[in-house]
Amino acid sequence: MAPDDPVAQDTRHVLHPWADLTVLGKQESLIISEANGVEVSDSRGKKYLDAIGGMWCVTVGYGNEELTRAIAAQALKMAYFTPFGDVSSEPAAKLAAMLAELSPGDLNRVQFTTCGSTAVESAVRIAHYYYASQGRPEKHHVLARVNSYHGSTFLAASLSGKAVDRTTFHYESDWVHHLENPVHDPDNAQVSAQERVDALTAGMEAAIARIGAGNIACYVAEPVLASGGVLVPPPGYHEAALEVCRRHDILYISDEVVTGFGRLGHFFASEAKFGIVPDMIVTAKGLTSGYQPLGAVLVSDRVANAIAEAANPEKPVFSNGFTYSGHPVACAAAIANIEIMRREDICGHVREVGPYFIRRLRELRSSPIVAAVRGDHLMACVECHVPGEVGPTARNQAMARRVDAYCEEAGLLVRPYENLCIMSPPLVVTKGGIDRIVDIMAESLARAERDLGAGAPE
Amino acid sequence: MAPDDPVAQDTRHVLHPWADLTVLGKQESLIISEANGVEVSDSRGKKYLDAIGGMWCVTVGYGNEELTRAIAAQALKMAYFTPFGDVSSEPAAKLAAMLAELSPGDLNRVQFTTCGSTAVESAVRIAHYYYASQGRPEKHHVLARVNSYHGSTFLAASLSGKAVDRTTFHYESDWVHHLENPVHDPDNAQVSAQERVDALTAGMEAAIARIGAGNIACYVAEPVLASGGVLVPPPGYHEAALEVCRRHDILYISDEVVTGFGRLGHFFASEAKFGIVPDMIVTAKGLTSGYQPLGAVLVSDRVANAIAEAANPEKPVFSNGFTYSGHPVACAAAIANIEIMRREDICGHVREVGPYFIRRLRELRSSPIVAAVRGDHLMACVECHVPGEVGPTARNQAMARRVDAYCEEAGLLVRPYENLCIMSPPLVVTKGGIDRIVDIMAESLARAERDLGAGAPE
Ligand SMILES: Cc1ncc(COP(=O)(O)O)c(C=O)c1O
Ligand SMILES: Cc1ncc(COP(=O)(O)O)c(C=O)c1O
Repeated sequence: MAPDDPVAQDTRHVLHPWADLTVLGKQESLIISEANGVEVSDSRGKKYLDAIGGMWCVTVGYGNEELTRAIAAQALKMAYFTPFGDVSSEPAAKLAAMLAELSPGDLNRVQFTTCGSTAVESAVRIAHYYYASQGRPEKHHVLARVNSYHGSTFLAASLSGKAVDRTTFHYESDWVHHLENPVHDPDNAQVSAQERVDALTAGMEAAIARIGAGNIACYVAEPVLASGGVLVPPPGYHEAALEVCRRHDILYISDEVVTGFGRLGHFFASEAKFGIVPDMIVTAKGLTSGYQPLGAVLVSDRVANAIAEAANPEKPVFSNGFTYSGHPVACAAAIANIEIMRREDICGHVREVGPYFIRRLRELRSSPIVAAVRGDHLMACVECHVPGEVGPTARNQAMARRVDAYCEEAGLLVRPYENLCIMSPPLVVTKGGIDRIVDIMAESLARAERDLGAGAPE
Repeated sequence: MAPDDPVAQDTRHVLHPWADLTVLGKQESLIISEANGVEVSDSRGKKYLDAIGGMWCVTVGYGNEELTRAIAAQALKMAYFTPFGDVSSEPAAKLAAMLAELSPGDLNRVQFTTCGSTAVESAVRIAHYYYASQGRPEKHHVLARVNSYHGSTFLAASLSGKAVDRTTFHYESDWVHHLENPVHDPDNAQVSAQERVDALTAGMEAAIARIGAGNIACYVAEPVLASGGVLVPPPGYHEAALEVCRRHDILYISDEVVTGFGRLGHFFASEAKFGIVPDMIVTAKGLTSGYQPLGAVLVSDRVANAIAEAANPEKPVFSNGFTYSGHPVACAAAIANIEIMRREDICGHVREVGPYFIRRLRELRSSPIVAAVRGDHLMACVECHVPGEVGPTARNQAMARRVDAYCEEAGLLVRPYENLCIMSPPLVVTKGGIDRIVDIMAESLARAERDLGAGAPE
């Protein structure tokens, strides 16, 4: 391989997020070179249907010319200027106004960031500021949940509750607490949804009693836990959790990095799907259809005004934000994305094809190696197992990897995680595309099942 | 003002980094609308010479067509795909190889991020992983310095040592420690450079003895402290600090977010200017000339290989990184930036005009309201004061704000900070541009001085 071959360059020089360290520098990377619509191709020219939407990101599909033109026009006209203090740009101002309009309740103040992690960090820091500026600095603890994912900066990684991600890094544990994973799968549940909600609420109350409500600044929650394995909580859970937060004066931060921007059929799911108006919403990913790095925290006027009123007049500076907060080119991409999504009613499209996607995937439960199918609209997963074996055991994980490899061979990219195959196709996926995903998945499951019958090594 | 006027939108909806909270929603924002070469213009059509380079970012100037074309071409061809695990893109692979070549020593592994803060976070987390994977999790404390700036996520903000930025947020203080601000200004120094180095080294040794070398993972340092006030340490300081780190087995992280990418006349300043090869270099800002949000940590092979070898085979995943790590569009911008910088020898240009910039700025010391002029190549500041008054007092800060306002009126944007006017023009600034900066600065200083003589209110 020539040294300027991208595979060689990548293998030699990139330290990937979630790289397998035991093969660092030895494993040949998969280079994705081109992308169009719902398809991507690798550097060897092999085409795949992208069933993961980049990584929960892509809304309007790849290769969109309107989005590209918006990016290029802004880069040429005004690529960047500081967003600090009282300085701004037209795209940042316009996007903030659009987000205020799209978001529920009085979430009308926007702090921009560069990604989901920085947006989660900013949201928690805003909660810290809110209470500390009222003379309550001890109210800085954070409630998160087991199996959640909130990012990979020190604090965001500490909030994340996926055991598999806890490696030999250092994590905050004195003031970050993890509540139970709230999944409730009606197919496999022992208890009713209402019983589950009651148990989860009781657990939350017990944790608050233990930590002390006077020490807790905020609660951070994905409406549907995405990377943790598409874990859908029981109906009524979010409303109950919000009620608990309100009662104990704890700010509610809804992490809509995945569920926002149409994946569940709405620009934001918190109110439209789950009936809650949180104090802050965190967004990233689909905000730009993945075309540009951008994140944002939407803050309620109530919280923003309280912060402004309580600010120390000797030191009134809100010392949080980034060089690239509200980057003009990234904001221009988000504006174009929203305009396209509105014009083409992409949320309406998701509300139509989403239930079809879940219905068709559920057919796969007839396979003996499928333990469960979970999901909501365009976020879903198929859980694999060796019949009779429960959970992410080594054999079950090997089974999912096998299914994943057969999918890849057949031109379908799904996201392997433990014993799951996770799927979140670009929002513009058609019913035909969905049929192709389910067909390839079914074939791959059948192949893996035959291997099992033939006593395949694990 | 119409509600869709960007000034109105911004004032109503954006929470800016370093916003003055006492005027949140009341102060009219300054909207920068266009930018070309070294000039920007606001939404009212007023033009300014941009003496801050966006915010230490801009290398090749605004409105660069080649850079814009690279961005647009990549956005259309392949805007995004996950960088997790073993998946990559051509721009990320190529940029990593280019950075490995530009960086000193064996810094050949690159972890990409979305900004400077996330890159600093990643560097510290890599240091944590390095020691914890060798069975030394207690070795996680971090040494930073007073007046440093490393970003605004929870950990990066905790590392930052600017007292003015410490507001009512929550900060880590158990395992983050701040050494003395290492500034040494030969114009105003009481001691020789060598005496200063010796004192700084002794202070570092004392801190290490107090904390225990066995508890310290890394030392994080900007070669020249930028946002803290362009604080230039004495010659020999970085070499001495590296020697101390080596002796105590502490990893040395050089934060070149500002000093990298040509601002001091080299792609990286650590070795070329300061004679040190650190264990990691953090870069962002100039990496893309500000056209795209991107950050990176360059990691030595020694550290990367040690991490790979020590990884737990049961859990070999390197669980650090971001959705937008190595974003293809951002990497394409960085590649174009490097290609232009090389072809036009922009580092050589900075080595030529940089000393001229400092020399001409130093002429301003003849003004009685100038307390000091500090800097190195294209990062510099003019410190203002009421004659006889020392440091960032309220009156001295008011003086700098007055100078800043006169500069803005006359079409020059500088960055006010405490009693300083900070400057870091785009690297393509010519001697003519430098003359204009210094002339406007001189006039503004003269006006402020006359106001003082006339008994101006503060
Ligand atoms: C729910 C959620 N929050 C936050 C993040 C962090 O986003 P980023 O990777 O852009 O930092 C992610 C990323 O997958 C996520 O899924
Ligand atoms: C030296 C240094 N490090 C890190 C940062 C943080 O970078 P960002 O604002 O992109 O997060 C900055 C930003 O000004 C900086 O000057």
